[in-house]
Amino acid sequence: MLSLLPLASVALDNGVARTPPMGWMTWERFRCTADGGDVAGGGTSQPSCAEDPENCISERLVRQHAEIMARPEWRGAGYEYLNIDDCWENWRRSPGGKLTPNSTRFPHGMRALADYVHSLGLKLGTYNDMGTETCGGYPGECKDESCSLPGYMGVDAATYAGWGIDSLKMDGCHSVHTHGVLDPAYRCMGEALNRTGRPVLYSCSWPDYIRTAKGEAPVNYTETAMRCNMWRMYNDIQDSYESVSGIIDWVGDHAEANGMLAAQGPGAWNDPDMLLVGNFGLSLTQAKAQMALWSIMAAPLMMGNDLRRLSEEMKAVLLAREVIAVDQDPLGKQGRRVFQLKGSQCGAHDVWARPLANGDTAVVLWNRGVCGTHSLLGFDWPTVGVADASRRMAVRDLFEQRDLGVHAGSFSSFVDLSGVLMLRLSPAEGAEHRGAS
Amino acid sequence: MLSLLPLASVALDNGVARTPPMGWMTWERFRCTADGGDVAGGGTSQPSCAEDPENCISERLVRQHAEIMARPEWRGAGYEYLNIDDCWENWRRSPGGKLTPNSTRFPHGMRALADYVHSLGLKLGTYNDMGTETCGGYPGECKDESCSLPGYMGVDAATYAGWGIDSLKMDGCHSVHTHGVLDPAYRCMGEALNRTGRPVLYSCSWPDYIRTAKGEAPVNYTETAMRCNMWRMYNDIQDSYESVSGIIDWVGDHAEANGMLAAQGPGAWNDPDMLLVGNFGLSLTQAKAQMALWSIMAAPLMMGNDLRRLSEEMKAVLLAREVIAVDQDPLGKQGRRVFQLKGSQCGAHDVWARPLANGDTAVVLWNRGVCGTHSLLGFDWPTVGVADASRRMAVRDLFEQRDLGVHAGSFSSFVDLSGVLMLRLSPAEGAEHRGAS
Repeated sequence: MLSLLPLASVALDNGVARTPPMGWMTWERFRCTADGGDVAGGGTSQPSCAEDPENCISERLVRQHAEIMARPEWRGAGYEYLNIDDCWENWRRSPGGKLTPNSTRFPHGMRALADYVHSLGLKLGTYNDMGTETCGGYPGECKDESCSLPGYMGVDAATYAGWGIDSLKMDGCHSVHTHGVLDPAYRCMGEALNRTGRPVLYSCSWPDYIRTAKGEAPVNYTETAMRCNMWRMYNDIQDSYESVSGIIDWVGDHAEANGMLAAQGPGAWNDPDMLLVGNFGLSLTQAKAQMALWSIMAAPLMMGNDLRRLSEEMKAVLLAREVIAVDQDPLGKQGRRVFQLKGSQCGAHDVWARPLANGDTAVVLWNRGVCGTHSLLGFDWPTVGVADASRRMAVRDLFEQRDLGVHAGSFSSFVDLSGVLMLRLSPAEGAEHRGAS
Repeated sequence: MLSLLPLASVALDNGVARTPPMGWMTWERFRCTADGGDVAGGGTSQPSCAEDPENCISERLVRQHAEIMARPEWRGAGYEYLNIDDCWENWRRSPGGKLTPNSTRFPHGMRALADYVHSLGLKLGTYNDMGTETCGGYPGECKDESCSLPGYMGVDAATYAGWGIDSLKMDGCHSVHTHGVLDPAYRCMGEALNRTGRPVLYSCSWPDYIRTAKGEAPVNYTETAMRCNMWRMYNDIQDSYESVSGIIDWVGDHAEANGMLAAQGPGAWNDPDMLLVGNFGLSLTQAKAQMALWSIMAAPLMMGNDLRRLSEEMKAVLLAREVIAVDQDPLGKQGRRVFQLKGSQCGAHDVWARPLANGDTAVVLWNRGVCGTHSLLGFDWPTVGVADASRRMAVRDLFEQRDLGVHAGSFSSFVDLSGVLMLRLSPAEGAEHRGAS
C-alpha cells in the first residue's frame, strides 16, 4: 500500500530534492522592484529600486535574507535555497553572448554571491525563461519565439554552473506555448544542466504554459517528472486567501488528471507556488491553512516573504516542526482531497489526507466557511485511508504539538473559520504510552 | 461649505447617537450559539451552547465583554454599547404575551444584566425582528407575516424600557419585505420606543430588506433617517476581506442613489455592519483597512469579535485614537469615494475623502492590489475636496500618529497590499509649528 510509485524511480536523476525543496524566493514579495518600467508578468508598473531601495532585487536583498535563513531556527527547520527570480540580469547579454547580473544591483557578481551563500551553509538559485525574454523583459534562453535549439542554453548552463548556482527556475514568457516548442526546449535545458556535472535543481513552469495554451494536448506529467525536479501546474500565486484557495481547489479537482499525482515523488514535485505567510493578504489563521495544505500536498516550501519583517506569530507558522515533518516525509507521497462540502457559507470544508512513511496518516481539516463562529468538523477513518474503520488511533495536533487522545473510528473538533486543524493519526499500540490528553 | 446638512436636523429626535455609535455586538463572532438546530439567518446548523459553552449567547458572555469594555482603554476610546443580537429569547412568549430571555442562558434576567452593564458605565442593547419570528426562529414583533399593527410592539417596547435597554436592533426575517408592510411596522416600533420615554437607540434593517425585495420602489433614506438612529443598507458582513471589500464597493457605488449619503448626519447613520477586526478572516493589514474605511464612512464602530481573545496588534487597530477621531468627528459627514482604479491586480486602488468639523480633510488611500509588493499611490488636492490646488497642507498618518510633512498640491506614498494609508490634511498655517518629519 505504501510502496514507492514506479514513476518516482525514473525521476530526474541529479540527486537533488529527494524531499520537497525548502527555501525563499524573491518573486512573490519583491516582484520586479528593479529598473522601473512596465513588467509583462505583473501587468503594470512596479516600483523601481530608486523609489524603493529596501525592496530592490539585489545582492543586498539576497545577502540580508541569507543571513537570516542561516540562523539555527531557519536552517534547522530545513530552509536551504535562496532563489532569485526574474529581474536580476543586465538588459543585454555581454558582447560574448553571456548573461551578466545587473551591474548596479549585483556589483560583486553572482560567483561572489554564491560563495557567500555557500559559506553560510545555504544554496543559491536563479531564474531564466524559455523565451526570447523573461517575463520582465530581460534576456531569455531562446533566440526566437519558436526557440530554435540550443538557443543560449548550453552557454548559460555553463555560466550558472560556473557561478555555483544550485537551482534554476525556467519560466515561459515570450515563447510559443505548444508541446512542439516547449517540450524540446525544457528537455534541452535540463540536458544542458546535466552536462555541466553540477547538481542543479531544475524547476519548470512548463506544465502551466501547456495547460493555458489553446488546442494543445494535455500536460504530460510523466515526462515532466522525468525531466524536472519540480514544476508549476497552475496560476501564479497572488497575495490573497482567494488565490491560495483557488490553487488548492485546482489541485484537488485535477489530482487524477493526466497523471499529475502519480508522477510526483522523491526528486520530482508538483509546485503550487510560494508561501505567502508573513505578507499582507493572509490572516494568521489563513497562514496556518496555507502551511498545512502545502505540507499535506508535499509541496516545495518556498517562502515568498520578507524575512526582515516577520511577526513572531507568522515565523512560528513557518517553523512548525511537526507540520514540516509531514511535508518532508521520506515517502514523498502527495496527499489528496478526500472530502469536500461546497456551496454553503457555514459548514463548507475540505478534508485532505496523506500516508506517511512510518504508516501514520496526516489529515488536514480545512474550514472554508466565513460565517462568524468556528465549526465542528470531523471525519471517519476510511475517508482518510485508514482501512480498519474501528481501529484505535492516537490523534495529534501538529501546530499545537499536542496529543488529542486515542479515538476509534472517527474524530471531530472545532476548526477556526478559514483555518485548519492539522493532525497525525498513529496506530494506538505505538502511541498509548504517550497517553491521551 | 461645511455647514450641517438640512436633513440632519430632522433626524430621529431621541437625543442618542449624535456621533456614530461605538460598541460590541454578539452576532458576527458568536452567531446563534444557543439552543442548537437550524438557524434561518445562517443557513446551516450552528454549534449549541452544550457543544461550545465558551461562546454561548448568554449573560456570562455579555458580562465578560462588559468587564473588558469597561477598562479605561476601551471606554476611553469611546466604546460604549454591548449589544445582544439574535437568540437571546425563550422560544415562546410568557402566558401574558411578554418576551423573556432564555432562562438557562440568562438566569438573572435582563434587568439585572442591564443594571450590571450600567454599573460599569456602559449601555446594553438588544434585538428583535419585524416578523413573526427572528431570523433564528425566536418570537418576533409581529403576529402575522403582514405585520398587522401594533403586533407586540407596544408591550415589547415597554418591556425593553423596563429592563433598562439602551439600544434595539430591528431585523426583518419572516416578514413580507414591501414598503406596504415594513414602512408602517418600522414607524410603529420607533413610536412605541419613543412613548416609553426612555432614549433607546433604534437600529433598523429596514432599508436592506426593501433593497432586496423584488419590484419595490427604492429605499426612502430620507424617511429612514427621520425614524432610525442607524440602519443597514446592504448584506450582512461575513468574516472575510472579500465581504468587507464588497460592502465598501457597494457603498461607493450607491452613495448618491436614493439620497443615501444626503440623509445621514448626527443621530442618523448609514451602517455598513460590524467590525471584523480580531477575528479569523482579516490580516492585520486588512483589519486596518476596515477600520479606516468604516471611520471615513462615519460608520457605527460595532465590534463583532471576541474581546477575550484579541492580539495586541488587533487591539491597537481598534483603539487607534486619531482614526476614531475621524469616525467621531462632530460634523458627522460621511466620506465619499472620490477616485477608483479597478481591474488590475497591481495598482488597483480607491481614494476616499471626508470633510471634518475643523476644516481638515480625512483621506484614505486603499491599495486593492494583490501582486506582492506595495504600490506607490497618490492624489491631488481637488480630488479630495481641497479647492485650492496649490495650497500647502500638513499631512499626518493617523494610524502611526506621525507627521508626514507639508505638501503643496498632491501627496503620494507606498501603501501595503490590501491595506490603507489614512491621513489628515490640515491647512499648513496651523500646522507648521508641528514641523515636518
